[in-house]
Amino acid sequence: MAFKKVSRIKIPDATIRRLSLYDRCLEGFLKSGKKVVSSSDIARKCGTNPAQIRKDFAYFGEFGVRGVGYYVENLQGDIKRALGIDRSWNCALVGAGNLGFALLGTDSLAKRGFKISAIFERDPILVEMGSFQGIPLYPMEEMVRVIPELGIQIGIIAVSPDSAIKVALKLTDAGVRGILNFTPTTIKVPPGIILKNVDFAIDLEGIAFQLNNE
Amino acid sequence: MAFKKVSRIKIPDATIRRLSLYDRCLEGFLKSGKKVVSSSDIARKCGTNPAQIRKDFAYFGEFGVRGVGYYVENLQGDIKRALGIDRSWNCALVGAGNLGFALLGTDSLAKRGFKISAIFERDPILVEMGSFQGIPLYPMEEMVRVIPELGIQIGIIAVSPDSAIKVALKLTDAGVRGILNFTPTTIKVPPGIILKNVDFAIDLEGIAFQLNNE
Repeated sequence: MAFKKVSRIKIPDATIRRLSLYDRCLEGFLKSGKKVVSSSDIARKCGTNPAQIRKDFAYFGEFGVRGVGYYVENLQGDIKRALGIDRSWNCALVGAGNLGFALLGTDSLAKRGFKISAIFERDPILVEMGSFQGIPLYPMEEMVRVIPELGIQIGIIAVSPDSAIKVALKLTDAGVRGILNFTPTTIKVPPGIILKNVDFAIDLEGIAFQLNNE
Repeated sequence: MAFKKVSRIKIPDATIRRLSLYDRCLEGFLKSGKKVVSSSDIARKCGTNPAQIRKDFAYFGEFGVRGVGYYVENLQGDIKRALGIDRSWNCALVGAGNLGFALLGTDSLAKRGFKISAIFERDPILVEMGSFQGIPLYPMEEMVRVIPELGIQIGIIAVSPDSAIKVALKLTDAGVRGILNFTPTTIKVPPGIILKNVDFAIDLEGIAFQLNNE
């Protein structure tokens, strides 16, 4: 069995986020040598419930073997294919500031198939370094040439809030199809471009909510 | 009307995340001078649907005025109270590296009521600076004294992945009730402690999913 390619049905964002979490849990099972798991096993590890897991998986068709459970490796492969991370994605980082360097300093993006292939930066002194950790550094003006040349599909905006809108425009003009915005600035993108905003405060609000309701 | 204090009912994490988003949308309405909105208005601005909004709000009891809609200011106040961000939360940042500085460099946490009152850092040379942007810098060993003294409830872990577990232990020993973990390390916390993990790759996976299914 395999996850079906999704067509018309709108899959909730929360399901997609949980798929990412299930994938991480399965990674843990694989590491500990577990080959077959039940939805209860996954639920326990991920902090959700078996019904939710079955509901999430149901968006992608039938799978698992009745009375046996899920083969960890197959299931992980299916989830990765469903998420589109059975392949790698070329990304551009815009902004070589503290946040940019923090992102470059972790291998968690690369591990998940997101490869930063170019860095764009406004400050000419930084650009003069030529590269950082082997990744080429370009001035902003080069976006329109470099992005199609390197086949970059996703742009990561880690600039100061006041330049975020201009950077998003440049990125879409240059041909990226997805944008991850780390600034608090509200960005509008043309139809067909996928935009996600990272907001550190949202997770803190989740903590506040739980602390407030204990 | 007011949002009821939540008791036994388990409110989905996704609802809590959406409350945070609704709050941000209402902020936008307020800025543009809009006083009354419908659930359709909120839905359009937040990229969700009116039924979802009514369902999310229903966890907190009755509100809105039939045939009129929601008073923006009241609704925002209710949401903030529900989330527990009608007050401020004292936080400690652990790790004065690139990510730590990036977090300190943005006012988006402070704006949402999360005040970083102390920074803990391993590197004695950094600690010698004494403070950063007016926030006192302490060596790790001071956690157990400083955290109760300043009434810090939430610890933000922005250290290298290999020290995350030790730091989480120190934080809970010192008395924090919530932890936001920016490292990819899996942390276990004692019962009653709220833990959230920030994973930048999850948002990228959401983008990949959508690009893959266009």
